[in-house]
Amino acid sequence: MFKTWRSFLLLSLMLILFGFLILGCNQQSPAPPTTVTIPEGELDPAVWGKAYPDHYASYLEQKEQIKGNSKYGGSVPESHLKESPAQVKLFAGYPFSEDYNEERGHVWALEDVTRTLRVGPKTISSCWNCKSPNVKPLVDKMGDSFWATPFADLKDQIKHPIACANCHDSKTMELTITSIPLLDALKTRGIDPTKFSRQEMRTMVCAQCHVEYYFKPDNKKVTFPWNYGLRMDDAEKLYTELNFKDWDHKESQAPMLKAQHPDYELFSTGVHAANGVACADCHMPYVKQGQSKISSHHLQSPLNHISQSCQTCHKQSEEYLKNQVIGTQDQVYKAKVALETALTDAINSITTASNNSAAKADMMNEARNLHRKAQWRWDYISAENSMGWHSPKEALRILGEGLDLARQAQLKANLGVGANVAGAANPDAGKTPGSGTAVEAAGQGTAPKQ
Amino acid sequence: MFKTWRSFLLLSLMLILFGFLILGCNQQSPAPPTTVTIPEGELDPAVWGKAYPDHYASYLEQKEQIKGNSKYGGSVPESHLKESPAQVKLFAGYPFSEDYNEERGHVWALEDVTRTLRVGPKTISSCWNCKSPNVKPLVDKMGDSFWATPFADLKDQIKHPIACANCHDSKTMELTITSIPLLDALKTRGIDPTKFSRQEMRTMVCAQCHVEYYFKPDNKKVTFPWNYGLRMDDAEKLYTELNFKDWDHKESQAPMLKAQHPDYELFSTGVHAANGVACADCHMPYVKQGQSKISSHHLQSPLNHISQSCQTCHKQSEEYLKNQVIGTQDQVYKAKVALETALTDAINSITTASNNSAAKADMMNEARNLHRKAQWRWDYISAENSMGWHSPKEALRILGEGLDLARQAQLKANLGVGANVAGAANPDAGKTPGSGTAVEAAGQGTAPKQ
Repeated sequence: MFKTWRSFLLLSLMLILFGFLILGCNQQSPAPPTTVTIPEGELDPAVWGKAYPDHYASYLEQKEQIKGNSKYGGSVPESHLKESPAQVKLFAGYPFSEDYNEERGHVWALEDVTRTLRVGPKTISSCWNCKSPNVKPLVDKMGDSFWATPFADLKDQIKHPIACANCHDSKTMELTITSIPLLDALKTRGIDPTKFSRQEMRTMVCAQCHVEYYFKPDNKKVTFPWNYGLRMDDAEKLYTELNFKDWDHKESQAPMLKAQHPDYELFSTGVHAANGVACADCHMPYVKQGQSKISSHHLQSPLNHISQSCQTCHKQSEEYLKNQVIGTQDQVYKAKVALETALTDAINSITTASNNSAAKADMMNEARNLHRKAQWRWDYISAENSMGWHSPKEALRILGEGLDLARQAQLKANLGVGANVAGAANPDAGKTPGSGTAVEAAGQGTAPKQ
Repeated sequence: MFKTWRSFLLLSLMLILFGFLILGCNQQSPAPPTTVTIPEGELDPAVWGKAYPDHYASYLEQKEQIKGNSKYGGSVPESHLKESPAQVKLFAGYPFSEDYNEERGHVWALEDVTRTLRVGPKTISSCWNCKSPNVKPLVDKMGDSFWATPFADLKDQIKHPIACANCHDSKTMELTITSIPLLDALKTRGIDPTKFSRQEMRTMVCAQCHVEYYFKPDNKKVTFPWNYGLRMDDAEKLYTELNFKDWDHKESQAPMLKAQHPDYELFSTGVHAANGVACADCHMPYVKQGQSKISSHHLQSPLNHISQSCQTCHKQSEEYLKNQVIGTQDQVYKAKVALETALTDAINSITTASNNSAAKADMMNEARNLHRKAQWRWDYISAENSMGWHSPKEALRILGEGLDLARQAQLKANLGVGANVAGAANPDAGKTPGSGTAVEAAGQGTAPKQ
């Protein structure tokens, strides 16, 4: 009987296959490759655009500034400080307390980095990194003297915002890593960048920039803290070992760390990464552009093209998928805001205690170190660009730890001065208070539950 | 061209269909239904077992006591108190501080409830609920006087542990709800239990018992706190409104809530529930038993049969799937243990403050209320049977909130007495200490990062 069955299936499948062979070649072919050549070393995306007009048109769509389907994020340069004034206190003494907006698309990179109030006369050229394809050839020429060179000195040589040459080889169009800091970091971790598969490269070109980094104290070179691994805890371990700090908090005097945008690191801990999904699978899905079907170069939230990004794997409705993302982000956002409150309380307690001559120096330092660790956790998730979606469990784990540490900072500061609320003598305090909480007053006990 | 294509596909599909029609009926039929009849009102699983020997054999496998592939859970009655001595303090003044073991299978329900040290002369018959199919007919006969009847008084009438009749109609074998508390709770929520689909019933029969509940103060009836919804916060809202407490904490004197096993409620917030997966899909997969293929009645961790439970939907390897579960549980466990530490600190602070005659009663009550809320969150996840796996994000959200609240309880108690560490006069306290943390000492600043 089995054999009869198999024959039927085999015959049917052969017929289907036959159809493919006969008819497949009659389908419309993709547009033939252009004959325009890109000169070697060319960095101007407009020149690349002559050879790849559809990709270039898609890239230029990044000029768009919309909230789209995002509840968090989007490409409107809204002020984070206005949305959450607590952040002004959290960044006290650091330029992020003065100017901190949502990012716009890659095409705006140069305009945004030169306009932000965070850039001033002391800014160095490390801040050009990840803003332009001009950086790589400049570092190739100048060596590590590039990084500490005053930002303004190289302004005329940085001509294009993030573009084609940041990720592609102009001859072969293959994906390529042009970021010196990423190449360094991979070397530190013993990873050979030439061994990446194409699918891995569809993540690694993004990891050139969407990562946590610091400026190496000796030469100010942009460096990724990956020596111990990619997790938040691994970076913190290295920073502790290096005695690294980004600034002293103006109020608590804690030695602070500023997190950048560890999108790649957080993503690496999540379920999409575990299943071999690449950044480009969600952020650069295949779309119709002009006459061709291309990988979209209009990088944005996948919520703006759920059918192309999510539904290639997830068969639920767009509405369901959108609600999953935003519902999860709501949870992360709530925990993030709770941590902002706890950090504010910690800073206030440390500041109050610091003004008390009875404060014990060792306990105050412990409180400051707890403030540093708690705010690092907050910033790691706050500065990351997905409101936790890239790895929700990891985001909630990190924020939970941050809450514990921020409250411990507050406790330590309070204990460091012994008292900051004078306790009036109260003989009732040792008993269960009769005038207690509503719950206390009611007193309905029950038999122990199983 | 399209038409030609369609013809080929159509022809092929017709051939496949034809094969099904001709050959399908030749496949081996399932074993014919037994002719043994189950007497109406029969509760003994051994009698049902004569009609359904394979299901009964599967049910009896629940005698097994193994850790299996579980890292957390399993069916070995290990002591939670030995594994985590902090819990003795957390449950101070409540019988769970004396005897609290991991559950064994359904077949052990009566043996375990009569043996536990938590049951004593004051125990009421509410504690028979969910332990036996004898409960429903007894309540039908006795009405609501059943619940407050002394536990020992009904011992002779409770004859069988959780069995067939708890979930099945003896005539039709259809799934049926026999739990009075669940029927009540559905009524409160305006849900008609006769409208559930079979797939929904494959969850609802489990929700008869695997839920949070309390004893209604007036008649001690087992009641589910679902008036406002199924979430942890919804139950807390009701308990607050009712001024409900399970016991007064022996050390902190806080009015405590004991969480039961809100497996169904936590599951309801997760991604499996959102996709229509039922409890039975994972815990009662289809397996070969004797000559038949049946839904397993050996209820256990799906980690013990990943291929039947998980791989029907998830195509990754068993190893990958197991690591996803246990890796997630490790994160939840870590947060749970951190919260045990925070709760211990809170209890100690409140106890110390209570012994201080200067303690302010209102602040002490606020501290106690914070202890109640924090420990409720801990217990909700700790008593739940999946170490967070039923809804990892929700579990981590709840534990994060618990950490915040427990530390706030500690802060409030410390502030309530003003001082419990005498601060020695220290003129350096107001400055950035020179002898501070290693990080402070190093003092590597950098230009602000972008």
